[in-house]
Amino acid sequence: MTMFLDVPVTGFTGNKLDRADELRRDPAAIIGLRGRSDARWLVLDKLNPVVRPGGVGGETPAILWAYRSDVPHDALTIFLGMDGDSPRFAAAAPADELVADFGGKVLDARAAGALLPAHEAAIVAQARSIIDWHQRHGFCAVCGGPTVLAKAGYARQCTACKAEHFPRVDPVVIMLAVRQDHALIGRQPRFPKGFLSALAGFVEPGESLEEAVRRELWEEAGITCGRVQYLASQPWPFPSSLMIAAFAESETFEVRLDQDELEEVRWVTKDEVRAALAGSGDFLAPPPMAIAHTLLKAWIESGD
Amino acid sequence: MTMFLDVPVTGFTGNKLDRADELRRDPAAIIGLRGRSDARWLVLDKLNPVVRPGGVGGETPAILWAYRSDVPHDALTIFLGMDGDSPRFAAAAPADELVADFGGKVLDARAAGALLPAHEAAIVAQARSIIDWHQRHGFCAVCGGPTVLAKAGYARQCTACKAEHFPRVDPVVIMLAVRQDHALIGRQPRFPKGFLSALAGFVEPGESLEEAVRRELWEEAGITCGRVQYLASQPWPFPSSLMIAAFAESETFEVRLDQDELEEVRWVTKDEVRAALAGSGDFLAPPPMAIAHTLLKAWIESGD
Repeated sequence: MTMFLDVPVTGFTGNKLDRADELRRDPAAIIGLRGRSDARWLVLDKLNPVVRPGGVGGETPAILWAYRSDVPHDALTIFLGMDGDSPRFAAAAPADELVADFGGKVLDARAAGALLPAHEAAIVAQARSIIDWHQRHGFCAVCGGPTVLAKAGYARQCTACKAEHFPRVDPVVIMLAVRQDHALIGRQPRFPKGFLSALAGFVEPGESLEEAVRRELWEEAGITCGRVQYLASQPWPFPSSLMIAAFAESETFEVRLDQDELEEVRWVTKDEVRAALAGSGDFLAPPPMAIAHTLLKAWIESGD
Repeated sequence: MTMFLDVPVTGFTGNKLDRADELRRDPAAIIGLRGRSDARWLVLDKLNPVVRPGGVGGETPAILWAYRSDVPHDALTIFLGMDGDSPRFAAAAPADELVADFGGKVLDARAAGALLPAHEAAIVAQARSIIDWHQRHGFCAVCGGPTVLAKAGYARQCTACKAEHFPRVDPVVIMLAVRQDHALIGRQPRFPKGFLSALAGFVEPGESLEEAVRRELWEEAGITCGRVQYLASQPWPFPSSLMIAAFAESETFEVRLDQDELEEVRWVTKDEVRAALAGSGDFLAPPPMAIAHTLLKAWIESGD
């Protein structure tokens, strides 16, 4: 067993904040942090981050870190963590004032994944997933009572039955079935024209990642697979997935399409993938921020 | 890159049912399957499976597959999948009748993980996680309205706002930090006396698995880690975790305990772990059904 292999770097990772979870349990400490002059807020307007746009001089966009006075005092707020000694929060609020007073711009969250520095895109992912969860969990699934934000944003508590609820993280497997010199990619009906990517699906209760990979490939493409090899993982804040990328050994080339899920599947060669990743292939490949890109790249670089 | 390594077999895996997800979308098909003479039910009484107990002749316990007539017609029921051509369901119901009429026994679900054949323990995991989720999600988190079971058990739908909700799968990282010839294990206050295991924690929104591993080791033991290596995964139906096991390269031996989470951490050698797994060590090791056991075993067998 070679114990440690290098795991490829994936989009939306590289968050440098210390999440400082011990502070979440301490409401007085959080109030203190909010009052600090070096505290800053990431504002999400309809789940999209407010940024300083990239300039004509070629500088890249960056999060517009707002002061407390620029954020409505009743905005839904979560604690992100500490940037060195400085507290960082995120709030859901309209961007109007930040746009007018500071030249801020609302950046689509997917575009943020591609355009912001990696460690800032990762902060956007953290903030977006948690705020979205709060906005869709105002009531208690156990009793139907109203819930309130708790633990600085990392829980909600029911005001009626006192049940605690925690943010969801939904594991998704995304995989390349491989056989001889070919890998299987496909297109969902919602994909842009010409776009093909790795197959994917949610992990279900009562299965391992490896079993989920085999089940999804069986359901969507009708192929049976043997061994499964983990490659890397990535948070995907639409709304709160954890993408887990793997290869699977297909036992066949023969496919049977689930036409509810996929419009087409195709066995491609490394040369075809190499061309597509370079932008000159006969299909559109996923962009670098998507772990499907990481999978395809790792495959063409592999010796197998 | 060696593309495929063998992944160790873990507890609660090996489910041989075809989950046949295409049938879930077809209520008429599910009604037809329920009426079939070869349909069978796994009954969970307070989330514990009803089994045929192991006999004096040494046979192992097995799921008591009940007939439809043995299950209350209004019991919460989910579709498990197909065993070859035969439909399999699970229902939440009192075990009294199955105990009285068929010699059934309610087996603690954790014990089921150790005592049932692997592929049956995996079915119990699937049924337990999904039924538990239904029982705690009678109301809509979006609007507070009542929800009803949908998609043969793989969703709930709000009767008021029509929002759809899906069963949770909560990813958990469980890991051994390793350094030179040592690995780090610890004990939570709730563990039995003398019991030590791998450190673990829930993955949070906006982080990769590798980042979650490093964050948890930092929070709980105060160690910084470099590379992280995935090993294997396991469903853990208490209530609905997906355990993801990994090794992490620790950069230090010096630890700082989070005393809310851990009572003790200890750097152990391979000889100490070998003895503990054999039942003759100076600590109690996790049992084979737990992926922490798989991690410890893989470590002592590794060349590193």
